[in-house]
Amino acid sequence: MFIVETVKEIRKIIKKEKREGKKIGLVPTMGYLHEGHLSLIKKAKEENDFVVVSVFVNPTQFGEGEDYESYPRELERDSNLAKSAGADILFHPFVGEMYPNGYNTYVETYKVTEKLCGASRPGHFRGVTTVVCKLFNIVAPHRAYFGQKDAQQVVVIKQMVRDLNMDIEIIPCPIVREKDGLALSSRNTYLNEEERRAGLILSKSLFKAKEMIENGERDGLKIKDFIVKNIQGEPLANIDYIEVVNSENLESMKKLEQEILIALAVKFGNTRLIDNMRIKIS
Amino acid sequence: MFIVETVKEIRKIIKKEKREGKKIGLVPTMGYLHEGHLSLIKKAKEENDFVVVSVFVNPTQFGEGEDYESYPRELERDSNLAKSAGADILFHPFVGEMYPNGYNTYVETYKVTEKLCGASRPGHFRGVTTVVCKLFNIVAPHRAYFGQKDAQQVVVIKQMVRDLNMDIEIIPCPIVREKDGLALSSRNTYLNEEERRAGLILSKSLFKAKEMIENGERDGLKIKDFIVKNIQGEPLANIDYIEVVNSENLESMKKLEQEILIALAVKFGNTRLIDNMRIKIS
Repeated sequence: MFIVETVKEIRKIIKKEKREGKKIGLVPTMGYLHEGHLSLIKKAKEENDFVVVSVFVNPTQFGEGEDYESYPRELERDSNLAKSAGADILFHPFVGEMYPNGYNTYVETYKVTEKLCGASRPGHFRGVTTVVCKLFNIVAPHRAYFGQKDAQQVVVIKQMVRDLNMDIEIIPCPIVREKDGLALSSRNTYLNEEERRAGLILSKSLFKAKEMIENGERDGLKIKDFIVKNIQGEPLANIDYIEVVNSENLESMKKLEQEILIALAVKFGNTRLIDNMRIKIS
Repeated sequence: MFIVETVKEIRKIIKKEKREGKKIGLVPTMGYLHEGHLSLIKKAKEENDFVVVSVFVNPTQFGEGEDYESYPRELERDSNLAKSAGADILFHPFVGEMYPNGYNTYVETYKVTEKLCGASRPGHFRGVTTVVCKLFNIVAPHRAYFGQKDAQQVVVIKQMVRDLNMDIEIIPCPIVREKDGLALSSRNTYLNEEERRAGLILSKSLFKAKEMIENGERDGLKIKDFIVKNIQGEPLANIDYIEVVNSENLESMKKLEQEILIALAVKFGNTRLIDNMRIKIS
């Protein structure tokens, strides 16, 4: 049985594996898996004995008017892909299994959730921390794998894990990109041909900004302005935010030092894409 | 080493015990232990192989102007009492160990926290669920023991455990009373002689209400009015709330059925006492 739908059943399986001394890796996803997810699954399989991939389009992390209903779902394809990448189980609970009648508890991390995507999507990270806390309690993994593509999510989850003393190692994995630079995302499927081409401006701008920093630029505002102008030059692009921040606490950075995160969210038509780059300042 | 102060150290101890197949029981307390706490520890020891008692006066569950600073603390006495009741470890973290700089995550259960004590003490249960979630993650017990004296706390923690899929059994234990009926509480130490005597009106009213129900009374409002009048007859008593509710969801009950909870909070001088009674309606 590869696909498991209930908390009770997956707990039973995990307990058996743990009794045999196996290390458990968890890869939480919303499904519609792409090479980015598969890289997480492969890494989890390298580092653990037993890998659980969860596929759950989590309603609590979508706001009013967002794409919860239309978010792409294709379980059979996901199941085959996850299995071929090394997953031992796919956990696919129904909404009522995760949020039964009378559900009333939320985990909320403040401060690092209030910037970037958190500012544009109020309530989003409360949904994320809540569902990840639940998945952590259900699967009780030793390690959990998250894509660096959702850079703020990684920061938020690390903060939650530290604050709530969860005994789980969080492993961020690099962004996987198409050959032309576009960061992989399940939402790329929403783009038409023109938008798909226009979306390249994001990775192009980030790579150019990285080059500027490698060439000595240390002024965060100049980097930001450069990216803003670059992206504004693309008529289909509609900027949500572009920020240059400290990669740990997400505070704005004027003079670049330590490790920085350049993070951005830009709409193309109705599709909101995010991308980012972490850069160590030498 | 009986007293353990750090998360790192207690985790190491628990992991060793678990590797040996031991069942872990946790008794979370704010210290200043009395026979009520000791009954929890004894029960935990009966049902588990290894018992952790935590003593932590949790700042996040006290409101402005409440008694966080003055709450009685007596670690050596607690340590001796806990040990003699069967505790294997006393976990006594400092505030900075539980809430380090930059701490920013809270667990919040809604609805059942909004009534009774939750209405009188805004933020109180957010502090309780947060610290209990942390203690559960730190100790990872199989079972956790709570006094029925804090009846709403038991309901709230059960709801949190269910909602967040915590794999921990919550065991409520009966109220322990002085011979004259006063429910044991660390806060009883605040009472002067007169207040101590006046405080007996609480248990007396609850026992009389129970008698009325046993004699067939099924009108929740009549029960409530009876208790209100009874307690108002005590000049030193200052009622915060008196409620007759469903013992599971804490909703008010007019016609008594299933299992009810009569819960009350009354001030005597500056000291706020709570007491309650659960009654199965046959």
